[in-house]
Amino acid sequence: MAQNQEATVVFGVVNETSETESRVALTPDIVTRLKRSAVSCIIESGAGIAAEYTDEDYEKAGAKVADRATVLAEADALGFVDRPSAEIVASLKPGQWVIGMLGSFTDADYITALEQAGLVGIGIEKLPRKLSSAQSMDEMTSQNSVMGYKAAIAAADAYGSFLPMMTTAAGTIRPAKALVLGAGIAGLQAIGTLRRLGAVVTAYDVRPASQGEVESLGAKFLDLGLDFSKGQGEGGYARALTAEEQAQQQAAVDEKAAGFDIIITTAKVPGRKPPVLLTAAGVNGLHRGAVVVDCAASELGGNVEGSAVGEQVTEGGVKLIGAPYLASGVATTASNLLSRNVADILVHFIRDGKLSQDLSEELDNALVVAGRAEAPAEKTE
Amino acid sequence: MAQNQEATVVFGVVNETSETESRVALTPDIVTRLKRSAVSCIIESGAGIAAEYTDEDYEKAGAKVADRATVLAEADALGFVDRPSAEIVASLKPGQWVIGMLGSFTDADYITALEQAGLVGIGIEKLPRKLSSAQSMDEMTSQNSVMGYKAAIAAADAYGSFLPMMTTAAGTIRPAKALVLGAGIAGLQAIGTLRRLGAVVTAYDVRPASQGEVESLGAKFLDLGLDFSKGQGEGGYARALTAEEQAQQQAAVDEKAAGFDIIITTAKVPGRKPPVLLTAAGVNGLHRGAVVVDCAASELGGNVEGSAVGEQVTEGGVKLIGAPYLASGVATTASNLLSRNVADILVHFIRDGKLSQDLSEELDNALVVAGRAEAPAEKTE
Repeated sequence: MAQNQEATVVFGVVNETSETESRVALTPDIVTRLKRSAVSCIIESGAGIAAEYTDEDYEKAGAKVADRATVLAEADALGFVDRPSAEIVASLKPGQWVIGMLGSFTDADYITALEQAGLVGIGIEKLPRKLSSAQSMDEMTSQNSVMGYKAAIAAADAYGSFLPMMTTAAGTIRPAKALVLGAGIAGLQAIGTLRRLGAVVTAYDVRPASQGEVESLGAKFLDLGLDFSKGQGEGGYARALTAEEQAQQQAAVDEKAAGFDIIITTAKVPGRKPPVLLTAAGVNGLHRGAVVVDCAASELGGNVEGSAVGEQVTEGGVKLIGAPYLASGVATTASNLLSRNVADILVHFIRDGKLSQDLSEELDNALVVAGRAEAPAEKTE
Repeated sequence: MAQNQEATVVFGVVNETSETESRVALTPDIVTRLKRSAVSCIIESGAGIAAEYTDEDYEKAGAKVADRATVLAEADALGFVDRPSAEIVASLKPGQWVIGMLGSFTDADYITALEQAGLVGIGIEKLPRKLSSAQSMDEMTSQNSVMGYKAAIAAADAYGSFLPMMTTAAGTIRPAKALVLGAGIAGLQAIGTLRRLGAVVTAYDVRPASQGEVESLGAKFLDLGLDFSKGQGEGGYARALTAEEQAQQQAAVDEKAAGFDIIITTAKVPGRKPPVLLTAAGVNGLHRGAVVVDCAASELGGNVEGSAVGEQVTEGGVKLIGAPYLASGVATTASNLLSRNVADILVHFIRDGKLSQDLSEELDNALVVAGRAEAPAEKTE
């Protein structure tokens, strides 16, 4: 009944909820949207509840709700917030498609496992972001945007004073001074949200082009007096600096950071250990009560020396928040955007009612990281 | 050395930090300010640290840092965020002054205890708020303002979507719809902060005068179709409604509430159980993922039926945050404002270099709730 009569492709999503993950790769709105593309959806019971979507919501939208085994068995393609576990890969059949952040830049063994299982792997990390047809598929952009928003809210919540200037009968409170390091999608969204809240915002990015973007949001660009021309790397990300450049940058940032109340760092480079932007010396230079939100915190370290996932207070009274999971903290909207991204990728690969690859197309050639149908028609790099 | 040579009055503050209290009744800025009024300060070691003020900060500003017994022994007047405990009252000497939220409206036994100890009690709860000379002493206003700001930040942090409208490549996110119930100082600050964040805000207050204030902040006034004229009570607070009026109001609010994503309630009436503005039926009518922040939550109940101090999620997936301690969550600024309020009250009572009462003055007559020097010169009510 819930199935679309004309559906030719079945899209499945399982429950990826964990302590740090509340998002889901399919939302009821997108079930409805996919129906129009002749895709029927099947979702594991409870998969959306952490993002506030109930089984009933999915059923009303026309999806089938089932147990995990049924989803894995019936789906032609599976979508993931992250990527399928080894256990899921083992239970899939040759010819099934998996769409997610497959980690093809860093984890060749995983891609080999997908190949050996006979699966077609669509690695969203490989999306050619600058292609206009790829905009609505850009999960990095949508999730980093959510992350930047939430980083600003989390900083405001942790800070012991107002962000806006307030003039009261008992005195005037000066606005908070915030510094955003890394002015990509996340950084720009953090700037915008901090500005909304009335903070005075300064930002820095190694890409010279970012100065205009920062200033267009009403923030000041931090002049470190350094020249890292050609700071822009492949695919619109910042390139990695040399060791010497990094040391110069760190010393300059550490010195400038001292006057700020809130610092948000957002410099993730896909597939690499995040660059240290603020060293322990920089953190020690901050005043008691200053708040640092490190969006790049991970087991390998983050943008801030000494940061770790979770919240800690330094001896000097600085709140250090290591927050790689911020997008999951705005789960309802983050899921809706992500689900749209994944669905648009799925629909791109449906031709004449079937999932197929055309490696002569730039998108296909970039995204298919396992189970490639043939050699690419031409190199795009 | 830290003492002011010309100081004639010694003002003391002890450590009131607890699980729910991070504020302190004296900040370093105010130490400096009081010096100009010939007041020297003595503060208990560690009293300010939860609000990010160190002992060293106080010493630098010219205060003496000591243990609690020394503070209680040396101070002519003591200032409190809350009020002195029975233990502190027992260790004070006749003639010492205590300034705080003494609870004179509700706790006659406590006031009697102050009288019996021979103390002069200055009850900030009795401040004639409309007197222009009292504006800078108005702790209720300063702390409610902080509370309203923080209520909006806490709601934004708990909500699973954006507050602002966002137009992205993966779709447009509609702005959050927020409802603020109670448009006093806290409510107006919550409205302002929610609006800064881009939410679409509606507000309601029983006082008809509040409509203009709400609208001047760019929010919509909620028309319940009810007339509680003369909703304004004594001292600028909302008056208590009759049982019948309350029931009418609740039914109307419950019905209107259903469409909102975020609800903040701020209706505290000093010395009374908070009125229920949103019943369990109203909460049940909210959508999964809606966030309710009840600033009036207490052991006696709050503005929202079923709310309790802390966070809980209802069966219907509504986040219910009972948050009476929000001002303490912005401890640095809240303390600075509160400290200024208390200091201005203290300085008001210093005449010719000594603490004294002049009950013919409206401020004195209102504020002195224990150890009154003489009968008031005239009734002010």
